[in-house]
Amino acid sequence: MDRKQFRELADPETARETIRSLDLTPDPETVSLREARGRALAERLDAGLDVPGFDRASVDGYAVRAADTFGADEADPARLTHAGTVHAGAEPDVEIGSGECAEISTGAVVPPGADAVVMVERTDRDGGDVLVRTSLAPGDSVMFSGADIAAGERALGPGTVVTAREIGLLSAIGVESVPVRGELTVGIISTGDELVRPGEDLDSDAGEIYDVNSYTVASAVEEAGGEAKLYPHAGDDYDAMESALRTAAEECDLVLSSGSTSASAVDVIYRVVEETGELLLHGVAVKPGKPMLVGRLKESAYVGLPGYPVSALTIFRVFVAPAIRRAAGRPEPETATVEGTMARRERYSEGRLRYMPVGLVTDGDGKTLVYPVDKGSGATTSLVEADGIVAVPPDVEYLDAGERVEVQLFSPEVRPPTAFGAGEDDPALSRLLDRLDRPRYLGVGARQGRRRLRDGVTDFAVLTGESAPEETVELGAWRREWGLIVPAGNPQGIEGLADLVDGEIAFVNRTTDSGLRSTLEDALEELAADRGVDRRELAESIEGFELAVRAHESPARKVLAGDADAGLGLEATADALGTGFVHCGTERVVAVADPDRADKAGVRRLAEAIEDDEEIFASLSGYRR
Amino acid sequence: MDRKQFRELADPETARETIRSLDLTPDPETVSLREARGRALAERLDAGLDVPGFDRASVDGYAVRAADTFGADEADPARLTHAGTVHAGAEPDVEIGSGECAEISTGAVVPPGADAVVMVERTDRDGGDVLVRTSLAPGDSVMFSGADIAAGERALGPGTVVTAREIGLLSAIGVESVPVRGELTVGIISTGDELVRPGEDLDSDAGEIYDVNSYTVASAVEEAGGEAKLYPHAGDDYDAMESALRTAAEECDLVLSSGSTSASAVDVIYRVVEETGELLLHGVAVKPGKPMLVGRLKESAYVGLPGYPVSALTIFRVFVAPAIRRAAGRPEPETATVEGTMARRERYSEGRLRYMPVGLVTDGDGKTLVYPVDKGSGATTSLVEADGIVAVPPDVEYLDAGERVEVQLFSPEVRPPTAFGAGEDDPALSRLLDRLDRPRYLGVGARQGRRRLRDGVTDFAVLTGESAPEETVELGAWRREWGLIVPAGNPQGIEGLADLVDGEIAFVNRTTDSGLRSTLEDALEELAADRGVDRRELAESIEGFELAVRAHESPARKVLAGDADAGLGLEATADALGTGFVHCGTERVVAVADPDRADKAGVRRLAEAIEDDEEIFASLSGYRR
Repeated sequence: MDRKQFRELADPETARETIRSLDLTPDPETVSLREARGRALAERLDAGLDVPGFDRASVDGYAVRAADTFGADEADPARLTHAGTVHAGAEPDVEIGSGECAEISTGAVVPPGADAVVMVERTDRDGGDVLVRTSLAPGDSVMFSGADIAAGERALGPGTVVTAREIGLLSAIGVESVPVRGELTVGIISTGDELVRPGEDLDSDAGEIYDVNSYTVASAVEEAGGEAKLYPHAGDDYDAMESALRTAAEECDLVLSSGSTSASAVDVIYRVVEETGELLLHGVAVKPGKPMLVGRLKESAYVGLPGYPVSALTIFRVFVAPAIRRAAGRPEPETATVEGTMARRERYSEGRLRYMPVGLVTDGDGKTLVYPVDKGSGATTSLVEADGIVAVPPDVEYLDAGERVEVQLFSPEVRPPTAFGAGEDDPALSRLLDRLDRPRYLGVGARQGRRRLRDGVTDFAVLTGESAPEETVELGAWRREWGLIVPAGNPQGIEGLADLVDGEIAFVNRTTDSGLRSTLEDALEELAADRGVDRRELAESIEGFELAVRAHESPARKVLAGDADAGLGLEATADALGTGFVHCGTERVVAVADPDRADKAGVRRLAEAIEDDEEIFASLSGYRR
Repeated sequence: MDRKQFRELADPETARETIRSLDLTPDPETVSLREARGRALAERLDAGLDVPGFDRASVDGYAVRAADTFGADEADPARLTHAGTVHAGAEPDVEIGSGECAEISTGAVVPPGADAVVMVERTDRDGGDVLVRTSLAPGDSVMFSGADIAAGERALGPGTVVTAREIGLLSAIGVESVPVRGELTVGIISTGDELVRPGEDLDSDAGEIYDVNSYTVASAVEEAGGEAKLYPHAGDDYDAMESALRTAAEECDLVLSSGSTSASAVDVIYRVVEETGELLLHGVAVKPGKPMLVGRLKESAYVGLPGYPVSALTIFRVFVAPAIRRAAGRPEPETATVEGTMARRERYSEGRLRYMPVGLVTDGDGKTLVYPVDKGSGATTSLVEADGIVAVPPDVEYLDAGERVEVQLFSPEVRPPTAFGAGEDDPALSRLLDRLDRPRYLGVGARQGRRRLRDGVTDFAVLTGESAPEETVELGAWRREWGLIVPAGNPQGIEGLADLVDGEIAFVNRTTDSGLRSTLEDALEELAADRGVDRRELAESIEGFELAVRAHESPARKVLAGDADAGLGLEATADALGTGFVHCGTERVVAVADPDRADKAGVRRLAEAIEDDEEIFASLSGYRR
């Protein structure tokens, strides 16, 4: 295929300019007042009528001719004849002559002849007469027609973003159809044969995975004020993908796709862009996003995003969201950017601009700390840890701990967690965290948990073992039964670790980061000592000892799937999944905090939950405090 | 009527507690993933499956047995037999034996027998064989099943507000139906016989006005995360209003009404609340909002808001919005509160807590200044000037210029205007302002404009006259023809001011704040001098000289409506409205800025627009620069 050549990576400013040049301005449209919230006005609106549209009584009382009350006071009231009554919302059927008055309610039309209203508290009734005990000037307690808003006055300017108060002004001037800027229609194409939509069945054996980027990007499009349109996965032939691309190009103002894993898919995109429009840019000198594509497709624009979810969201946030916001006329909320300081030193030697995904956490004084996440791992879980991005210029070699950085948040609603922990993956902890408001917890295992706490990034760690590490504050501890997960009924009659060593049992272990794995190693050490052999030797004789999985349920699931005879696990897991369980021991789990962070509200709340929440421990098999 | 007595006003904290006690917690509901954005999760979600669900190749290359590559390097490659190909999204139809390999794409299932993937760049093809030029360890370039998210892991906690990134995680674990907290249904009842819905016809003669509060409050409800339901205006009998209230109480979690102007309407509310539930609180020691009602209606809660739009929004913001946010599980965005300093000294002696509506403006250094608006005027226009509220405690007698205050914004989207001016109401200016981004301009007349500029609140003023005031910077000026607006064809043959003085002509003037009025007075002064009489004498002989209206089109509209024979106005207005016009003179209009604010981007933009925007002046009859 004869591809247009882009020998050099574009610099990021050129990429931004190119996207700006695509002219993503949808036609204005008219929406009803009830739907106008959050939209930007397409044009200036002047008042078409006076508010109020009549001379309006601003108190309950009597409409009078002011001249009739001159000189009246408490002692010497003016006596007026009661000539009628005027209600709010009704046309006056009375005209006020000299020496007359009419009863009037707040909001009612001041009747012809009257030029002032006296409040009822300053009057008395005397038969058919009204005694006015004060002197009035013309206009007293009358809001004249147009006094609030006059016909012809400028009401709202073009581009005004409509909030509750603008809705109020538009209501007042009777505007029910509001001319607003059109919403950009953004088509999102998924380009991977292996992608399945959430809600549909997944065939893992065929390597299918759920489509993450389409929904993530669609949601980000909507947050920026665009209308997202998902184009279904195109099937496994490229003709279908090409047809989806062409349809999207016709129906949308902007088409996004996110990094296909296959070179052939990229070829299809190239071909469609070149045949129906023009490829403007291929490759930008940023990380992530180097393979970014920008082009024009007939009436619409095209931007290709990277494939990793955090990378796709990063490039969207930096290059695409501003264009959508501009088209919708909705400026980025000020909260979309926050300042913070680096939690620890980070080295770089990228040689090009890097958009570094970061998480936020507050220190003990409530100051915002920033730490990098997802160093190119592409993990979906890092999506939830990544609060925003920091732009690191090409010539920066490191960011020092305490250095100030500006974070572009992925969403203005993002806030630092009230408590941030890492460590052992434990079912009781998972329930305890439910008692906290916005906690963040990474189940990376006790070893990584300890390391992160030492690095000054996390507030607390959840570890296994009898004692808490030095220079930490113990928040609370509990015990859990551990052992071997086996098929229900324990068909092989496994009795303990010795059977793993001596028998023909396919075992599934946990990774070495896990505290439970350490506990297993200790138990093996003991068994080795009993037998007078080396621990290593025992481990080697266990089939699958090195087959290690990451999370607490994972070995049990391998056993359930028939992929193994026994797995390292917890009694609670066996109980929850209905497998058999061979008891091996009791392990202590302890939550410890950084002393500087132990007083954070979220951290205190965790300690309280461990102390108070009897129910959680009672509900889990093999747990006690 | 036997009303429950509330002798003392409740303190604001009690009011807040009472509303909190109403237990506004709607039942959780399930929404689709595409609709989950912005909602709060009703429960914890754990991963139900492994992500990926299979051992996944993370590069394009060959699936191998790592052991077959031990010792291989660039010079001495391992030779493997090409046994097949595995594509992403397809089940492998090959099993890797010793000495074999299979071509594999990124994302594809690592076939049985293989335990590593070598990237294509480190290999060469040699006929049916593949030469692997590096040594691999088991697991190299393989993402193991569950390595990203493992089944049973905590995915998201209860209460998590769903943004794009949470949508991503939920997609990854295939969650299409998302359990979220229910939205609070908030019924809004309009309680005034004179209220008409925007879009419907208005009978001003009958004292009808458009309903402002219902739509404003509905929009504020939605912004806080509730679902608003408008109950149509109940007609002019109280039975209908009572029935609307009872229906709303059955259909909604919370019912709001805003200050009725009639005592009978309040009676109806009292009766319904007492008959179907309980009145918990009447009157709160705050300004505005003293007459606030709080009660329980059967299954729902009731809060009565004040009647003035800004007051209704204030009480909603302070007492009701937090309850709706709490129910929806959506915390108030951090931007909903900003800090600023008072632009000038303000006196108070309320004796009770005051929620002071304020506007924001930035000074020349970009710092936020705060100034009070709508001092109880109840004007609808002050809605758009009021950016938020400052709580002033009962014992505060004044706020000093420069004092720091905290502003609770009416909407997190609120931002200070880029240029803030006040002064003459002028059609050219209105168009010039369209060229600015978020300007704020109060058409209060030249006199008030000058005063506000002097007070240090506004950035610029638009005045009339040949020279700019001292200590201001002139931004630009233009000239406009002024004179008398008369019916089309000038049936009375009016030729100038002298005819007003000498003839029987019903005139409509502008208010004394208007620059145009000053110009008229000057012209009258000249006429008086010519005639050797007093200006005052001439003014008195003009019929309606004291009948003054506020905005530039208002006199013309009176003439059009047949209420007057002539009105003070501009040639441009006569042209726009198709009336006749009698030329009296040319007036200079000048925009001047506070020297400290002249460099604000918005102010500079205004100066540029006056300089450059020939088209605006050319399009207005009688205008030139």
